[in-house]
Parts: sequence; C-alpha cells; structure tokens
Amino acid sequence: MAERGVPATLDEMRAIVAQFPGPDQDAAQETTAREAQLTKPAGALGRLEEITQWMATWQGKHPPTCVHPRTAVFAGNHGVAARGVSAYPAEVTAQMVKNFVDGGAAVNQLCRAVDADLRVYEMALEESTADFTQEPAMSEEECAMALAYGMMAVEPGIDLLAVGEMGIGNTTSAAALAAALYGGGAAQWVGPGTGVAGSALERKIEVVEQGVARHKSAAKDGFDLLRRLGGRELAAMVGAIMAARMAHVPVLLDGYACSAAAACLAAIDTHALDHCLVAHCSAEPGHRLLLDKLGKKPLIDFGMRLGEASGATLVIALVKAALDCHTGMATFAEAGISGKDAE
Amino acid sequence: MAERGVPATLDEMRAIVAQFPGPDQDAAQETTAREAQLTKPAGALGRLEEITQWMATWQGKHPPTCVHPRTAVFAGNHGVAARGVSAYPAEVTAQMVKNFVDGGAAVNQLCRAVDADLRVYEMALEESTADFTQEPAMSEEECAMALAYGMMAVEPGIDLLAVGEMGIGNTTSAAALAAALYGGGAAQWVGPGTGVAGSALERKIEVVEQGVARHKSAAKDGFDLLRRLGGRELAAMVGAIMAARMAHVPVLLDGYACSAAAACLAAIDTHALDHCLVAHCSAEPGHRLLLDKLGKKPLIDFGMRLGEASGATLVIALVKAALDCHTGMATFAEAGISGKDAE
Repeated sequence: MAERGVPATLDEMRAIVAQFPGPDQDAAQETTAREAQLTKPAGALGRLEEITQWMATWQGKHPPTCVHPRTAVFAGNHGVAARGVSAYPAEVTAQMVKNFVDGGAAVNQLCRAVDADLRVYEMALEESTADFTQEPAMSEEECAMALAYGMMAVEPGIDLLAVGEMGIGNTTSAAALAAALYGGGAAQWVGPGTGVAGSALERKIEVVEQGVARHKSAAKDGFDLLRRLGGRELAAMVGAIMAARMAHVPVLLDGYACSAAAACLAAIDTHALDHCLVAHCSAEPGHRLLLDKLGKKPLIDFGMRLGEASGATLVIALVKAALDCHTGMATFAEAGISGKDAE
Repeated sequence: MAERGVPATLDEMRAIVAQFPGPDQDAAQETTAREAQLTKPAGALGRLEEITQWMATWQGKHPPTCVHPRTAVFAGNHGVAARGVSAYPAEVTAQMVKNFVDGGAAVNQLCRAVDADLRVYEMALEESTADFTQEPAMSEEECAMALAYGMMAVEPGIDLLAVGEMGIGNTTSAAALAAALYGGGAAQWVGPGTGVAGSALERKIEVVEQGVARHKSAAKDGFDLLRRLGGRELAAMVGAIMAARMAHVPVLLDGYACSAAAACLAAIDTHALDHCLVAHCSAEPGHRLLLDKLGKKPLIDFGMRLGEASGATLVIALVKAALDCHTGMATFAEAGISGKDAE
C-alpha cells in the first residue's frame, strides 16, 4: 500500500481490512460502570443502552458523542437498469441527485430533523457500469477507485456516519450480491424495489440468476464479487464503512442495497461490520433475510423502502437520545434514591 | 354533566366518552393526496406515512403539526406495594418525582432531545390507594377526581401528547387490569416490573390473582375496573387520553402500565383509542400480549421497561421527522422528476 497515498487497488483495500482496529474495551467498561449507577432499574432503557455501549466501544471514548453526525448518500448508475428491472428510468438517478442538492428529498428533511450534515456524492452518472449479465460491472481499477471515493465521506470531526445510496437498478445489484454470497436462489432475494411486479419482477429475477451464474464461482472474494455484481455507489458505501472503522466512527447502515454492499465486506472479515448497526429493516423482502445472515438486528422496522439513507438518518435521532440519557441522567447517589430491595 | 364544570362522577366521564369526535376524513384525504405527489415511490416511507396520516386525521387539519408536543408523567402510590410486589420501596415514587423536578431522570433528557414540554403530576403520594386485594383501590369519587386531574394535562396549543407514569407497584395494578379485562390467568400478565424474580414474582402473581378474583365479576365496566384495580396515576392517564381526544390532540401511549390503563377506556368504547398510537413495546412480557388484544402495533421495539413516558417521548422524534418529510419534500412536478414506468 502506497505510504500515505490513496489506495488504488483491491489488494490495497484488502490490506486495510487486515488493519481494522478492534473494540475499545476500556470505553465499553466505563460505559457499563456509569450505566449501572443511573436512576433506573438495570437495563431498563433497553436498546438505548446498547446504542450507547456501541458508540463508546467504536468511538473508543467515554462518554461517546453524537454532535457531528454525517449522512453520506452515494449515487451511481447501473448497466443492468437497461434490462427493465426498475419501475423508473435510469435518468431518475441524476434527477434525484438534483433533488438532494435542491433540498427536496426525504433525506434532506430527515437531516434537518436530526441535525445531520448531508453530503451527496455523484459518481459518473452519465456513464453506467457494465451490464453484469454480460461482463463484470466494474474493472478492478474502477471498483478500487469507487471504494477510495467513498472513503472521502469520513472527514475529521464527524462522530457518526449514516450511509445510503441512490441508483436506479441497484436493488437488482443488491439481490445478485446477496444471492451470490448466501445462495438460496434468486427469487428469495429479489423484491419490488421501487415498485416492479408481474412480468417485470420475473425479468428482474432472471437478470439476477444470470448475473449470479456468470460471476459467483469466478469471484475470488467479497471485493471481487462487489466489482462484478455491484456498482459504484455500492462500492463507495463499502469504502465509507472502511474509512469509518479506521477513524473510529460508528456507522449506521441503511436498507437493502446498503446492507448487501456491506455484506461483501463481511465476507472478507466476519468482524468487519462490528462497528456498524443496522438502522432499520426495509420492506424489501430480501433485507430481513440478509440481516439474519449478517447476524444484525435492525433498530426499527418501519416498512421503509426508499434508500437514500433515509432509515439510517432517521435513527440518528435515537442515537442522540440514547447518549443524552447516558450523559445527562443523575446517578442514584446524586438523586438520593433508595436502592433496589431497600426496606 | 355539569355545564362547563369539571366532571366529578364516573357517569359524567362515561358521557364524555359518548361524545368523542371521530376521525377527520377531509384531513386524511388531503394527506393522502399530497403524499402521492412527493418525490418517492408510493408508500416508500412506510410507517412515517402512517404517522403523518394519523396526526392529520386526529388533529383534524392538513398539514398536521408537531411544534408543541407535551410529555405528561403522572405519579401515584399503590396500597398493593405493601405486599412486596416491587424490587423498590414505595418511597421511590416520591424520590423519582424529585428527580424529574431536578432534571435527572431519563424522561428529562428525552424531552430535551425531542424538544417536548415536560409536565409532572404528583398525585397524593403520601396517601396510597387501598390494597386492591382487600377492597377497591379507589372510591368512585377518588377515581373520577383522578380522571379529571389527568384532563388538566391537555392545554390549548399542544399538538401531541405523550403519556406515562411513575408508581411503585403499578405493573401489579396493570397486570390485574389486563387479567380482568382479557382473562387467560394472572401468570401471563405478570412480569418482573422493576426487577422482581423468584418468590417475589410468585407473590406478585398471587396478589394479581386475588385482586382479579375479588373485583372482576363485580366491576360494571372499564371505569369501574379502573377504580377497583387501578391507581390514581393510571386513572389520570385515562383522563389525559380522554381530554386529548376532545381537544383533537393525538396521543402516544407508553409502556405496560399506560397501555393497561388505556385498555380500560377501550373496554368502554372500542374506538376510544383510535387517536392513540402505541410508541413502543415494553420488555415487560405482558405488554406484547396486551397490544395484541388492543389491536395496536407498537412503533418501536427497544426492550425498554422504564415507564415515566420514556418510550412515548423518544418516539416524538420520529413523529416530528415524519411530518418534516410530508411538509418539506418536493413533489415530482416541482422537482421535474420522470414518473414511474416512464421511458
């Protein structure tokens, strides 16, 4: 790996994964110790306590903070979209990017609601990746470049990263990645995406089957699968997740496309997503199954299926509330409250 | 019912339920119409759209607002606490009220996080209700007074109400109400509450069985059951829910004690809780079962079991985000985005 340079090959990316820092046990223990003293029965805040513990463990500090959360949305176009797998035409990707820039999308309102910094990364939308039923979606260099591009989303000062995407055709790509990683047949991984049904849904399943048949056995590892069946925005999300790990920034994963991309990283190292929580379970039917495979329990289950980091951004509100409880609550001693089982 | 006066009897309370306004279909339809034009696939924001629809329907206006949410926490003491059904002594109720006033409890941090107005209502803590294994917890007059007291939480200007409670012994009361309303045996309705186990849990089940045996067949209706097996803070929550309905203020219900109190109102009129959403499913095992009986699907499932409106207050953040999306997003026409299935 080039000293201090931007990693430019998939082998350099593999070397970064091998250097991932582990959990900070000191921060975790300090969190546990304070949690036990707060004015509530032990464990009574449930997953809010889990969130606090996770933030401290992966930020490597106690108390953890959530004062500069960032939402990063990556947009890319897919050659496979030309196969009629989406309810919307491919130009909608660029139109939605304009909507993000103009402040009109759901993620804009959500970022304002949770006071998160929104960054939108447009990735060569005028040039789709290759149709994966014919050839790999990306070359090694293109995929490494997309990973490196995604790494830019992690800048000094941010303390939480929500990642998401926009890309017409990318639930097809996600389904192909999941089917290649976990097997079980294309049909169980393919869903309506933006809203396909009937013959279009059948076509989507067929396209996924073709992609898996062409690339599954040829793929060397998760990164190679990502370049063959993924897309630029999917690779960029993986890069952002990697950079966040190196920078001690916890990550909230969004929906199906995001989780499928992340699964490629988990295929390289089963602990590579330990610094990530899954924000929500999407209505896209394959997502629940994918989360089971990843061993991740989503925080909320709102039947959302929009992408654009909408679920991950929404959940930032819950992360902030969790930390506010942990840092702001009085201890039993401070409040002069009788202990458990006192008489 | 006394003209313009405070209702003072349970019959006057019954008369109020009979006057409950229904859903505002015009506001609901305006919401549906706008939702369909926003820059997302139809239904893609899942339960966020449900929340918006519910807010508009029960506020009776479009667009709905959430600029003055209030969290109301009612505190009361229970005669049955003397039977050793809680892990904490009864004086903790008053100590926790002081903690609320001093700003040290979870609900204080959560109200700050979601920018909700917190009101704490202390209800004659020095004088517990009667032990329901021996006699009704409250007289008719006491119960009506507690209901009327709870109504004060709904003041002009608030546009969302989160209700919750603090009361050592009140999960015992909640279990007794649920068992009397729905049957099925005390054991399935009794859980650890603040953390009882073993012989204390057995005692709690026995106390619930005794209460149900004494009052179930004698109770005339939900209000009568509430006075017999409930407590002042439980009745006050019911009063707050009633006043909110009359004032077109949607309500977020909190955990087990809150839902069991609300179930008494549902027993009087099956549509009496239509203006309420259940914020979360508590870790208290009877809560999930109770919500099934009420036909309510909780918004989040965080394993919280603290009471004090903590779950309901947390969810205010999601309500605000839902409305922000609905009011702030661009329409397809405004954003110039190609329609579904366009070519």
